[in-house]
Amino acid sequence: MDLQPILDGISAKIRPHLSDGRVADYIPALARVEREQFGMAIVTCEGQTAQTGAAETLFSIQSISKVFTLTMALGKIGNNLWHRVGREPSGSAFNSIMQLETEHGIPRNPLINAGAIVVTDVILSNRSLISENGIGEPGYDAVQEILDFVRLTAHDPSIAIDREVAESEAAHGFRNASLANFMKSFGNLENPVERSLRVYFHQCAIAMNCEQLARAGLFLAADGRDPISGKKVVSAPRARRINAIMLTCGHYDASGDFAFKVGLPGKSGVGGGILCIVPDVAAIAVWSPGLNKNGNSHAGTLALEMLAKETGWSIF
Amino acid sequence: MDLQPILDGISAKIRPHLSDGRVADYIPALARVEREQFGMAIVTCEGQTAQTGAAETLFSIQSISKVFTLTMALGKIGNNLWHRVGREPSGSAFNSIMQLETEHGIPRNPLINAGAIVVTDVILSNRSLISENGIGEPGYDAVQEILDFVRLTAHDPSIAIDREVAESEAAHGFRNASLANFMKSFGNLENPVERSLRVYFHQCAIAMNCEQLARAGLFLAADGRDPISGKKVVSAPRARRINAIMLTCGHYDASGDFAFKVGLPGKSGVGGGILCIVPDVAAIAVWSPGLNKNGNSHAGTLALEMLAKETGWSIF
Amino acid sequence: MDLQPILDGISAKIRPHLSDGRVADYIPALARVEREQFGMAIVTCEGQTAQTGAAETLFSIQSISKVFTLTMALGKIGNNLWHRVGREPSGSAFNSIMQLETEHGIPRNPLINAGAIVVTDVILSNRSLISENGIGEPGYDAVQEILDFVRLTAHDPSIAIDREVAESEAAHGFRNASLANFMKSFGNLENPVERSLRVYFHQCAIAMNCEQLARAGLFLAADGRDPISGKKVVSAPRARRINAIMLTCGHYDASGDFAFKVGLPGKSGVGGGILCIVPDVAAIAVWSPGLNKNGNSHAGTLALEMLAKETGWSIF
Amino acid sequence: MDLQPILDGISAKIRPHLSDGRVADYIPALARVEREQFGMAIVTCEGQTAQTGAAETLFSIQSISKVFTLTMALGKIGNNLWHRVGREPSGSAFNSIMQLETEHGIPRNPLINAGAIVVTDVILSNRSLISENGIGEPGYDAVQEILDFVRLTAHDPSIAIDREVAESEAAHGFRNASLANFMKSFGNLENPVERSLRVYFHQCAIAMNCEQLARAGLFLAADGRDPISGKKVVSAPRARRINAIMLTCGHYDASGDFAFKVGLPGKSGVGGGILCIVPDVAAIAVWSPGLNKNGNSHAGTLALEMLAKETGWSIF
Repeated sequence: MDLQPILDGISAKIRPHLSDGRVADYIPALARVEREQFGMAIVTCEGQTAQTGAAETLFSIQSISKVFTLTMALGKIGNNLWHRVGREPSGSAFNSIMQLETEHGIPRNPLINAGAIVVTDVILSNRSLISENGIGEPGYDAVQEILDFVRLTAHDPSIAIDREVAESEAAHGFRNASLANFMKSFGNLENPVERSLRVYFHQCAIAMNCEQLARAGLFLAADGRDPISGKKVVSAPRARRINAIMLTCGHYDASGDFAFKVGLPGKSGVGGGILCIVPDVAAIAVWSPGLNKNGNSHAGTLALEMLAKETGWSIF
Repeated sequence: MDLQPILDGISAKIRPHLSDGRVADYIPALARVEREQFGMAIVTCEGQTAQTGAAETLFSIQSISKVFTLTMALGKIGNNLWHRVGREPSGSAFNSIMQLETEHGIPRNPLINAGAIVVTDVILSNRSLISENGIGEPGYDAVQEILDFVRLTAHDPSIAIDREVAESEAAHGFRNASLANFMKSFGNLENPVERSLRVYFHQCAIAMNCEQLARAGLFLAADGRDPISGKKVVSAPRARRINAIMLTCGHYDASGDFAFKVGLPGKSGVGGGILCIVPDVAAIAVWSPGLNKNGNSHAGTLALEMLAKETGWSIF
Repeated sequence: MDLQPILDGISAKIRPHLSDGRVADYIPALARVEREQFGMAIVTCEGQTAQTGAAETLFSIQSISKVFTLTMALGKIGNNLWHRVGREPSGSAFNSIMQLETEHGIPRNPLINAGAIVVTDVILSNRSLISENGIGEPGYDAVQEILDFVRLTAHDPSIAIDREVAESEAAHGFRNASLANFMKSFGNLENPVERSLRVYFHQCAIAMNCEQLARAGLFLAADGRDPISGKKVVSAPRARRINAIMLTCGHYDASGDFAFKVGLPGKSGVGGGILCIVPDVAAIAVWSPGLNKNGNSHAGTLALEMLAKETGWSIF
Repeated sequence: MDLQPILDGISAKIRPHLSDGRVADYIPALARVEREQFGMAIVTCEGQTAQTGAAETLFSIQSISKVFTLTMALGKIGNNLWHRVGREPSGSAFNSIMQLETEHGIPRNPLINAGAIVVTDVILSNRSLISENGIGEPGYDAVQEILDFVRLTAHDPSIAIDREVAESEAAHGFRNASLANFMKSFGNLENPVERSLRVYFHQCAIAMNCEQLARAGLFLAADGRDPISGKKVVSAPRARRINAIMLTCGHYDASGDFAFKVGLPGKSGVGGGILCIVPDVAAIAVWSPGLNKNGNSHAGTLALEMLAKETGWSIF
């Protein structure tokens, strides 16, 4: 299948929709991003690539980082993770605290904020033994370890954290601080609240472009093994299970709708990006900053719907 | 792939687990079903069949009927259905009423009880024009229309309703009566509560065996067209979307877990049955009456997990 | 204290506020009541009476009936009532079903709809032995027993039920039917749902005027004994406890506000009436059909606030 | 009425119940308090005093401090306070966060933790102009201002804060930090979260004995004016309204039960103390560290129930 003309067609058709959504405005660094931007990139398991629009423009990956930290935490403590976080859709907004109260501090899944903070806490408590400045070493930094992992999967050491975004998140992160303190009160955070939050805010502030993001997610489309380098990132069953969680939980309280319309595992971020996996076929990244009412990229979702329709890539 | 030895192997391995769950006991007709039973049947899109254990023993399909009525209602009013019922996972138990209050009488999805009652109400209000005793005819009966549809997809006119179960459901159906009255108070039921409930209780009391059930669901594995007779039941995109809803919502508040472990669209019933779809490949029905704490068949889920592992049929 | 000039003053001051609220419109029989009406009556423990405005106009007492049925049920089964209904404020609307789910079918208190339906169910299951057509007698009717009790406390055998209102309530009572079925599913209704609801809808449809209502409530101001006839209705501690429940729960989710502003035990009805108790001093009834956003009489609440201020009758 | 023999009688009858409750154990400084202690003190508006048991033993007043800070905040900004906190019972536990989400960061009332943190924030933002080191002064300290106010109403300058308790609260105050951050995210805290929490933790750590506490609350029994010194603390209507809030909200989700059984405005603290007001008659303080399941003093509640029964002091 020749992907380039398909992407070009989507790029043309998407233009009138770029002004529909609303840019995230809870921090200045995100609020000033120009809305009418769009980029898309695909990498197939066979190494074919295609891209369109602003596919090389950096954006804040935000919650998409949760997919990478989930992968890392599963690598560190395996299925023990599921004692501390569930894997059910939440049926509520991304930052809701209600179910956390009903369910005694155990977040519903690792792709909502509360769950991702627990995942970060797991990473902090289980530092990699192989990293240069590993456990017990003064230079160790979980933020660096997460960044290293993303660089590794993207095969791009230039990927960096936007420090301004990270600091801005921290300065306005009262809701996340509330979630973290709430879980801490139930004993479901091992590290000091501030430390877990610091790492969480930094992972959200990783800046990537569509090209890098699609490349970084490719291992999830290929049974956990990077199909280009041949390097194994996670086992095949684990990769499939991460995809399952992305499908049921990756778009907060619009996950069912995304499955219905696009039919592919995906994870959105409030920066306007979406990472989407076509098992055994390809990884896709799309970006457009205008968000719909559920906090997911409006044009990005639409573009993926068009792509799924034209390629027949729905997993259903 | 030779499916028979796989099913035989599963049948042997599942035996020690048949006494683990708990048979539904809210009505006498279900409570007296013997727990340690197990049956499984597969029909592939190419017409291959395999079965094991009590695959020809009739059981009450209960909530699995929701898949068939959803298909019918979409055929009658198309996407207008989504004005009256959502398509998001509920994040709560199958008969929960909380979200119905928060969301003003609109059920979260068509596969929880409240949503299925709305679907039934839609069928009642949109009687088929082509049925013999159709709209306005004295002999018209929505129950009969649903039964006819199931018989048609299963290619088996012998399928019947267990009247004792239907009456028993009605006599003990206070929770469903509560849900129906609640939605009626928000104007989300068009027919009298009693009429919608009567049809709902009867559709749940359809008795089928694994062989019939797998055959009946086969159109969902084949883009909406019965691959054996070649007859179209629904359009391809609609079939895929029904599968998407089964995956995100088909196991109540254990849907995420089922997606995680089995990785296939499925719908469970409190009678112990599960219908599972492998897109483009096959339809599977499994039955074992012992339920886990989420109200899904314990051994049935386990058997599907084994099957998915051995066949690699996960959609992820 | 000369109450007549105080009432006359309130009557004059209240006039501009009579058009502020909104008449209950969920049933035609209530919707057509003219909004700009106002009546008020006081009976003191010493037998002094005062009234103003339309104090002799009949209105539907609606939820105020819950005070009388609570008194009756406590007389029948005493503190055993508290195994089936709580006595805590609900923190939510009068017809909310959420807490009923969280608290397994036990309503928060006897003055919200769910709680009052349980109270009615208790009356039905514990028919008075002394009534003429008592337990087991073909002519027995719980509706008649409730009406008799109200007539007795009001010393007025002319009080009657507005059958049109009762039938209209039944025809539109889906929310109450939902609550009743929900509790039945938890085993917290002994009688058939329809029977309990029938009695409930009829008790709400009792028509009284302010004069009758104040007289009927007087025993609650006088330690449970009618201070005029000298007849004991309930024990002194029980009367005080009923007052306590009226204070904490009598105005649904505006009970705190009513205690804050008026400072007296009271129970409102959606027909625009409020019964208010001044312990050891007097009983007050006020009526004005326009309701505020919490479903309580707008002008009635205001009038009671004025009265409490001028008389210094706050219990605090 | 001779109160001393009544108190002595209660003291004797309460003994067998002192081992029933459970001492608060969320911080070490509270957990090590010996459970089987009991003290009680009454001060009447006429200056009569009576006390029994450990009425001079200091304990941590904890949430009882909320009554004093509420009085202060109303003195500073009057009814504007009600834009930032409600006055309805919560229908849930003292530290619940659910309603805060539903109601957009506005706590239900000033006597639950979230509401009291807002009250503290109001005090911080509206420093007294008349205090020696008032607004803008380097020595100003809201903690000191609160302590000064309590000392003033108790007529006892020796009252102090238990710094160990305050620090321990801060070190374990994750749930309160969650509540505060949550409200901050809705803009309902003006000061930095840490600053408001610091003051809140210190006010809770004020140590008093029953004698001091009853004396400190006496102005609430006497229309807002200290009946002994004759000094006005708040206006009469405001004092009555504070009492109303204590009655409807003072015992968290057992407020209805306390009103039912004791029939007096009261505020409990997790340290085992309860301050109780008999309007126009007296103020009562009771202390016993064993808590019931709602977090209120078990023996303290029982003692007040006995006292109310013997004195007939119920306001109902």
